[in-house]
Amino acid sequence: MSEYSALLGTEYPIIQAPMAGVQDSALAIAVSNAGGLGSVPCAMLTIDAMRVEFTAMRSGTQRPWNANFFCHEQPAPDVAREASWRAALAPYYDEFGIPRDSAPAGQGRAPFNDAMADLVEEFRPTVVSFHFGLPPALLLERVRATGAKILSSATTVDEARWLDAQGIDGIIAQGVEAGGHRGMFLTDDVSTQVSTLALVPQIVQSVRAPVIAAGGIADARGIQAALVLGAVAVQIGTAYLLCPEATTSRVHRTALQQPSAGHTALTNLFTGRPARSIVNRLMREVGPLSSAPPAFPYAGGAITPLRARAESEGRGDFSPLWAGQNVSGCRAIPAAELTRLLFTM
Amino acid sequence: MSEYSALLGTEYPIIQAPMAGVQDSALAIAVSNAGGLGSVPCAMLTIDAMRVEFTAMRSGTQRPWNANFFCHEQPAPDVAREASWRAALAPYYDEFGIPRDSAPAGQGRAPFNDAMADLVEEFRPTVVSFHFGLPPALLLERVRATGAKILSSATTVDEARWLDAQGIDGIIAQGVEAGGHRGMFLTDDVSTQVSTLALVPQIVQSVRAPVIAAGGIADARGIQAALVLGAVAVQIGTAYLLCPEATTSRVHRTALQQPSAGHTALTNLFTGRPARSIVNRLMREVGPLSSAPPAFPYAGGAITPLRARAESEGRGDFSPLWAGQNVSGCRAIPAAELTRLLFTM
Repeated sequence: MSEYSALLGTEYPIIQAPMAGVQDSALAIAVSNAGGLGSVPCAMLTIDAMRVEFTAMRSGTQRPWNANFFCHEQPAPDVAREASWRAALAPYYDEFGIPRDSAPAGQGRAPFNDAMADLVEEFRPTVVSFHFGLPPALLLERVRATGAKILSSATTVDEARWLDAQGIDGIIAQGVEAGGHRGMFLTDDVSTQVSTLALVPQIVQSVRAPVIAAGGIADARGIQAALVLGAVAVQIGTAYLLCPEATTSRVHRTALQQPSAGHTALTNLFTGRPARSIVNRLMREVGPLSSAPPAFPYAGGAITPLRARAESEGRGDFSPLWAGQNVSGCRAIPAAELTRLLFTM
Repeated sequence: MSEYSALLGTEYPIIQAPMAGVQDSALAIAVSNAGGLGSVPCAMLTIDAMRVEFTAMRSGTQRPWNANFFCHEQPAPDVAREASWRAALAPYYDEFGIPRDSAPAGQGRAPFNDAMADLVEEFRPTVVSFHFGLPPALLLERVRATGAKILSSATTVDEARWLDAQGIDGIIAQGVEAGGHRGMFLTDDVSTQVSTLALVPQIVQSVRAPVIAAGGIADARGIQAALVLGAVAVQIGTAYLLCPEATTSRVHRTALQQPSAGHTALTNLFTGRPARSIVNRLMREVGPLSSAPPAFPYAGGAITPLRARAESEGRGDFSPLWAGQNVSGCRAIPAAELTRLLFTM
C-alpha cells in the first residue's frame, strides 16, 4: 500500500481542501466518490448544521472523507477596537446610505470543542484535519481514539516540527500561494510565509510524518512537482471553486474568471486573520493587511452589510474572494470530472 | 540535443543566477567549468571593470557563459525625494554619530548601452540575459547579431507574453521566492508577484520560447520539480552565496547561516526597486516596502554610510542581505562541487 493510501485511504493522493463558506458536503461527496478525499469544512457551522453535513456524508459516500475544524484560541471581544474598525468603515456605510449601527456582531467561528468531538465519535470520519494548530490534548486524544487519521497545516518549518512532536499522522505544508486562511499558529508575521516549492522540501527533511503539499497546485504537472518535492499527496482547493457542487457565490465565481483573478493578496480585513483573496476595492483602499480590524474571528461583522449591498448589485468589492495564486486550474465542471482530470492532464 | 543544451550549450540545465554585488567572474568560471552556465552580473560594473571580467571569462573557461545586464529606464534624480529619504534616515545617522551630509550620491547602475553592446560584440558571450525587460530594439539587434542567445526574466504571464513577442530565445520565469531584484517591468505592484509553482506552468502554457524556472530552487528535488512543471532549465542563485568563489560579505554569509535566514521580504529600501532580502533592522523599522526611498537605482546612496559603519561592527542591520525564500541549499563548498551536488542529491 502506498504511503498516501495508508494515510488517506483514497485512490488518488489528493485532498479536496476544506473551504468554509464556499462548499459543503455536496462537493466533498463528489470528490470522495471520485477517488479523492472530500472535506467538510466545519468552521462556520453550528453543531446542528455539522450533524446535517455529516449525515449527508454518511449517506452520500462509502469512501473516506475528512472533517475539518479550526482550533484557534477565541479572544474576548474588544469593544474599543471594534468601534474603531467600524469608524474606519463608516465612509462606506455613508456611501451606500446604510445606517452605521446596522452591522451585526462579528461572525463566530468556534474552535474545536467537546460537542464537535462528540460528533466525531459518532460519525467517525476517516480523517480529521485541523487549521491553526491543534486542539487541547484531551480533545485531540478523543479524536485519536476514534481511529481517525489526524492532519494539521504547517506554514513554516517550526510549525511542522511542532506538529510532528505531537505525533499526528500527516502534515499539510501550506505554501503561501494557498487561498483562504493561512494556517499559521506559532507566528503572526506574514513575512515568514514561504512558497510551496520552498516549504515542502524543507519540511520533508525536518519531520517524521508524511507531508501533504498545498498552495499553487492547479493541475497534473503541479501535482507531479509536489510529489517530486517529497510530498505523499496534495491538497487542492481553488481549482474546485467553479464546480457546480461548490456553493461559491455568483460574484466570487465571476471574479475567479477575470484576468484580475491572478492578482491576489494576503488580507486580514475579512476575518482578522491573514487569508488570500483576489484583490478587491476594500483591500485596495484600506490596504490588504491592516492593524484596524478586530482579532479573528470578529472582523467580518462590520463588513457584512457592505458586502451584502455590493453583492446584491453584482459586485465583490467587500467580499472575501478567497483564491490561491494559481487559478488556472479552475473549471466549471463537475467535481468528479475535475478530480479525474487532475490526474490525466 | 536536448532543449536546454540547444539554448545554453551546457552539460546541465542550470544557470548560475547573476548576482550583482556578491559575485564576479570567479564564481561564473567555476560554474561554467563544472557544466552549468556561469553568469557575470554587469549591473554594478564600469565598462572598464566589465572588460576585466569578460577577459577573465575568456581565459578561465572554454565553455558557455552568460553576461547579464540591467535594462531599466534611468530616471532623473529627484532632489526633493532624496532629501526626504535622507531626513527619514537622519535618526540613524545621529545614533551612529555620522554627519548627516556624509552620504554619497546614490550608487549608479547603468542600463545596457552602446558601450556594453561593443563589449558583447567583442567578447561574444554564449548567452546574454537581461533584467527589467529588454533594451531598445537597436541595442537588442546588436546583441542578436553576435549569435548570443537572449534571455530575460518574466514575473507575470503578461511579462512573459511581452517578451515572447520580441522573439527572444528563452524566458526566465522568476517566482516571487527568488532573492535579489524582482525583474518586474510591466508592473510595479508587488501583489502581482506569484510563486514559481504557480508561475512556471502558466507561462509554459502561454509562450513559444523555452522557459527557465527561477526562485525557491535549492536542491535536486527542486530542480526536478521545476522540470516537471515544464521548464527546460533552472536558474539558481542563493545556493551559491556561501561558495568561496562568491564575494558575499562576511555579514551576509553570517546572516545566511542563521535560522532567521528563512525570514525574507521584498524590500525597496536598498535600491528603490523591490528585491528579496533577509529581514534586518532597517527593513523592520522602516517597513520593507516604503514610498520614501528615491527611485531605482538611487536609494542606496543615503544608506551607504550606515551600512559601512554597521558592517565594520559585524552587523548587517543596514545591508541588503539578498536571499531567496529557500536557503536550505546554501553550502560553503566550491561552486563546482555544489553544481554537481545539485544534480546528484
